[in-house]
Amino acid sequence: MNKSMTLEEKAHAKKYDPGRDWSAFPEYEAAKQGLRDYWYPVLWARELEAKKPTGIKVCGEKIMLQRDAEGKPRALHDRCPHRGVRLSQGKQWWPDTVSCPYHGWTFNLKDGELKAVITDGPDSRMCNKAAVKTYPAEERIGLIWVYVGDGEPHPLKDQLPKELVDPPKYAVGGRIEDRGGDWRLYAENGFDEGHAKYLHRTSIWRIMKVMPTWNKIHIEKEGRWLYRVEDERYWEADYPGLGKWTNDRWFKIKPKQRQGKFMGNTGGGKTNAYIKKQNLTGFASISLPGVLRIAYPNFIHYEFYVPIDVDETKYVGVMIQFKTGIKKWLYYLQYLLQIRWMFHGNFSGQDHWMVEETNAPPERLYRPDVSLLEWRKLFKGPHPFHDKIEEDA
Amino acid sequence: MNKSMTLEEKAHAKKYDPGRDWSAFPEYEAAKQGLRDYWYPVLWARELEAKKPTGIKVCGEKIMLQRDAEGKPRALHDRCPHRGVRLSQGKQWWPDTVSCPYHGWTFNLKDGELKAVITDGPDSRMCNKAAVKTYPAEERIGLIWVYVGDGEPHPLKDQLPKELVDPPKYAVGGRIEDRGGDWRLYAENGFDEGHAKYLHRTSIWRIMKVMPTWNKIHIEKEGRWLYRVEDERYWEADYPGLGKWTNDRWFKIKPKQRQGKFMGNTGGGKTNAYIKKQNLTGFASISLPGVLRIAYPNFIHYEFYVPIDVDETKYVGVMIQFKTGIKKWLYYLQYLLQIRWMFHGNFSGQDHWMVEETNAPPERLYRPDVSLLEWRKLFKGPHPFHDKIEEDA
Amino acid sequence: MNKSMTLEEKAHAKKYDPGRDWSAFPEYEAAKQGLRDYWYPVLWARELEAKKPTGIKVCGEKIMLQRDAEGKPRALHDRCPHRGVRLSQGKQWWPDTVSCPYHGWTFNLKDGELKAVITDGPDSRMCNKAAVKTYPAEERIGLIWVYVGDGEPHPLKDQLPKELVDPPKYAVGGRIEDRGGDWRLYAENGFDEGHAKYLHRTSIWRIMKVMPTWNKIHIEKEGRWLYRVEDERYWEADYPGLGKWTNDRWFKIKPKQRQGKFMGNTGGGKTNAYIKKQNLTGFASISLPGVLRIAYPNFIHYEFYVPIDVDETKYVGVMIQFKTGIKKWLYYLQYLLQIRWMFHGNFSGQDHWMVEETNAPPERLYRPDVSLLEWRKLFKGPHPFHDKIEEDA
Repeated sequence: MNKSMTLEEKAHAKKYDPGRDWSAFPEYEAAKQGLRDYWYPVLWARELEAKKPTGIKVCGEKIMLQRDAEGKPRALHDRCPHRGVRLSQGKQWWPDTVSCPYHGWTFNLKDGELKAVITDGPDSRMCNKAAVKTYPAEERIGLIWVYVGDGEPHPLKDQLPKELVDPPKYAVGGRIEDRGGDWRLYAENGFDEGHAKYLHRTSIWRIMKVMPTWNKIHIEKEGRWLYRVEDERYWEADYPGLGKWTNDRWFKIKPKQRQGKFMGNTGGGKTNAYIKKQNLTGFASISLPGVLRIAYPNFIHYEFYVPIDVDETKYVGVMIQFKTGIKKWLYYLQYLLQIRWMFHGNFSGQDHWMVEETNAPPERLYRPDVSLLEWRKLFKGPHPFHDKIEEDA
Repeated sequence: MNKSMTLEEKAHAKKYDPGRDWSAFPEYEAAKQGLRDYWYPVLWARELEAKKPTGIKVCGEKIMLQRDAEGKPRALHDRCPHRGVRLSQGKQWWPDTVSCPYHGWTFNLKDGELKAVITDGPDSRMCNKAAVKTYPAEERIGLIWVYVGDGEPHPLKDQLPKELVDPPKYAVGGRIEDRGGDWRLYAENGFDEGHAKYLHRTSIWRIMKVMPTWNKIHIEKEGRWLYRVEDERYWEADYPGLGKWTNDRWFKIKPKQRQGKFMGNTGGGKTNAYIKKQNLTGFASISLPGVLRIAYPNFIHYEFYVPIDVDETKYVGVMIQFKTGIKKWLYYLQYLLQIRWMFHGNFSGQDHWMVEETNAPPERLYRPDVSLLEWRKLFKGPHPFHDKIEEDA
Repeated sequence: MNKSMTLEEKAHAKKYDPGRDWSAFPEYEAAKQGLRDYWYPVLWARELEAKKPTGIKVCGEKIMLQRDAEGKPRALHDRCPHRGVRLSQGKQWWPDTVSCPYHGWTFNLKDGELKAVITDGPDSRMCNKAAVKTYPAEERIGLIWVYVGDGEPHPLKDQLPKELVDPPKYAVGGRIEDRGGDWRLYAENGFDEGHAKYLHRTSIWRIMKVMPTWNKIHIEKEGRWLYRVEDERYWEADYPGLGKWTNDRWFKIKPKQRQGKFMGNTGGGKTNAYIKKQNLTGFASISLPGVLRIAYPNFIHYEFYVPIDVDETKYVGVMIQFKTGIKKWLYYLQYLLQIRWMFHGNFSGQDHWMVEETNAPPERLYRPDVSLLEWRKLFKGPHPFHDKIEEDA
């Protein structure tokens, strides 16, 4: 601001200030195409076949997935070095191999080596002289995971939310969907404190429950995870010069606030023993490379914002209930009848709408955006796996 | 042209000359995104609500429109400074305000000031510290008008065609439609003398009337307006080496040419007294920032070519009859049954087709293009409102 | 490769080498938009009218086609010099002319001269002072051909496959279709030895016939044409470490290999006398500017890859049988019932799929790609017509 301005001019200029760019967060600004050297969930395990490959894209890299003869998922660079055709358009003729559809170049799934060129006969001089890059791949919690990076990967279990490493029993429901928009805006929206109460007040998922009008929070960091912790909650407010505002209606239930560290506005029912045992610090938490965890009393909802490329994101929304037997099947029923369209459809569709609307930077942040600021600082590192500095909590 | 060319070579080069660019009209060339500091009609008044905002774009600027508590139209920059979401996606909770759909940032419609942030409680520190730009807005002749500029606006009535400032009685019909294409090409096409007779000969609007084959015109300037004035008219012509051409058919009526200054090829019927009183210099006239007026005996047709952005134009076609009572309602009936699809549909669709086909510059202009040349010179100024030099006629 | 690498590191680097770009073929690399100074087939002769023009694009140039009063095809630059509207959107009022739809500028089809401007009267000063470029155009073998170039064209018959210059009797069937993709990739795919046997093994056209597994070939050059000549053919192969592969099935016929110079894997039946007389050196041959010839025993299939523009190609697939009388009509019946959808639809659709998948350069070529390498060398010249060095065979 110009020093020769009057106080009134300064106040006016400040009001109409377009806001800040992201230059205070250079690592964040640079991560437009995604963070490498991480594991990403990319596909339902039940959709991966041995006879036919599947093609995906993560962090701008084209990757082909297929099961080997033992049923283990394998991932190769999805580009035949001959003429650039995607191997994922091809098929399997022999176990542990995939053949390009154009001329039958045939690669070993395990090491990416060219084993045969069908149209060049058994003595082809290309064999073992060409290869495609392989990517580490794993199957966990019903999902196929791929490690996008160059060096030796850290174990997938080190990166998984700890309660998913070895749960004694569980059931999984969810939705995987490619969506337009920057993965960072999806992640910010997910951990954003402010919007949930206001934007989602009209979601069918919350139709019977009052949403708070506003609250005060702080962020706690535990290992790789950031937690939003609520300090004060207000069900209504009276805005000076305007009047009262509340989401309360006669037909809505006002959920009790739970005691202790554990969760906030999460509705009735008994808390699941396994979830309780995790002793999570807050209702919502987030970690790199873009994993959101929302801890409801009876299930935990995860959102993985997998960067496909600049401006395209694979939304992997997974809801896990730590039960078994008949309760597991009742959960699946509830998922299909209610959660799938209410939560992973309508509710998450509102987030999608806002990500498409968001036109930042520039931006002017307010008190609840402390959640965004802390999240952006994570990008600066140190990074728990690559920088070998701190351990996962 | 190279001086060492033979005469024959020179004639050949001239024939195949691709034509001129627009560098002779630098102000015109620079106006690709529209002219600022003007009023633009952007919406039917009946479509503007108080509870729900409407979003538009003029001259590349996103603008939100909504009625205040007194019913007056208000216009704000359509971008919440928080995260860039369009306010036009939000709604009104309190009179004279609009709230962003994402986090409930709530702005005063009258001055653009941030009055409340719903999700930050009554004591939010942002209040009165942020604001969005406001735009002057008015309601006239059934349309909402917005002033796109930075300084104090000139009165809308100074810019209106004078017969619309305070007509004793009138009825309005019309069509507003966003169309692909440069607004300048729409305006040129509108005032272009040459095409009407030839391109529109096949329009349903003209199916029963002969169109002249060619004519001679000159342009007269009166205040802010340019008029096309016809000097000679020919219903047919015999082209050397080719033969006769006419639009005359046995079932078509050849309209009488009217006497005096007033209009040309406009068909039968008694001239409306109010229109006659205007004593317009010609059938077709145009003024900045892109307003075409076609004076038929019983109604006047206006086309406003509102620049949305580079290569997108809001076509605002309005037909006004200066009558009242039963004649007004008969006019509305005629509008709905005939004019709407014949004129604002089929006829104006031919113009749309040609604007999309036009691929100029380069261009080679011919005699009737004096209308285009005079129009382009207007852009050079002086501009009647901003340059305070000449008065409106 | 770095000299200080170990042998193992070198082997590894070589395996993962992304491959070569096209800098070894600079003339080929430069031909992205097509080769000028050639004749191109662009339209079925039966589709060209005298009353209404047709617009096409070749080598990035917009061209308008129309028949003159004698029925001869004429081609003009498809752009009215007045305002850039396509003349192909207009119509014919007088024989040997075309008029622009916007203002009636009327051009002579034979020399491109402006003969009249309808809206400017018989004395228009523009007449004979403006003109559009003409292109040489011809009608041959049921197709309209246009010469895209600047100088005097070579005779079309010099560029035609010699057997099409003056065939005593023939019948033509085919498909013309605009397709996305670089014309060079279509041409390469057409002459590519390797893919036919593998990619097309699943085509309906080949469903009853065994395709060889692999073969060895060499390329012979005769005048302007390159021929693929087969040296060895294998119906199956046993790939080390993988196993056997063959396209042979109990219901498929294994065609006999023909003796002498003439064709290879082309199925049964008696060879057509006229085709036999041509004494073609191989089954598949190609010539500039992108003409593929596949000589079956009873008909010859041609593919002309006409460059529309960068990344768009007009596929002109023509099948010609050298018969007459009842056999000609039986051929037309077979074409409509079988060839049209099997060959020019399904089979050629597989090629289209691969051209869209091809993502080269970089590329790593293998033994059968000798066909591609020889084809690319043709671009270097000398060019038979323009460089006046060698004669057509």
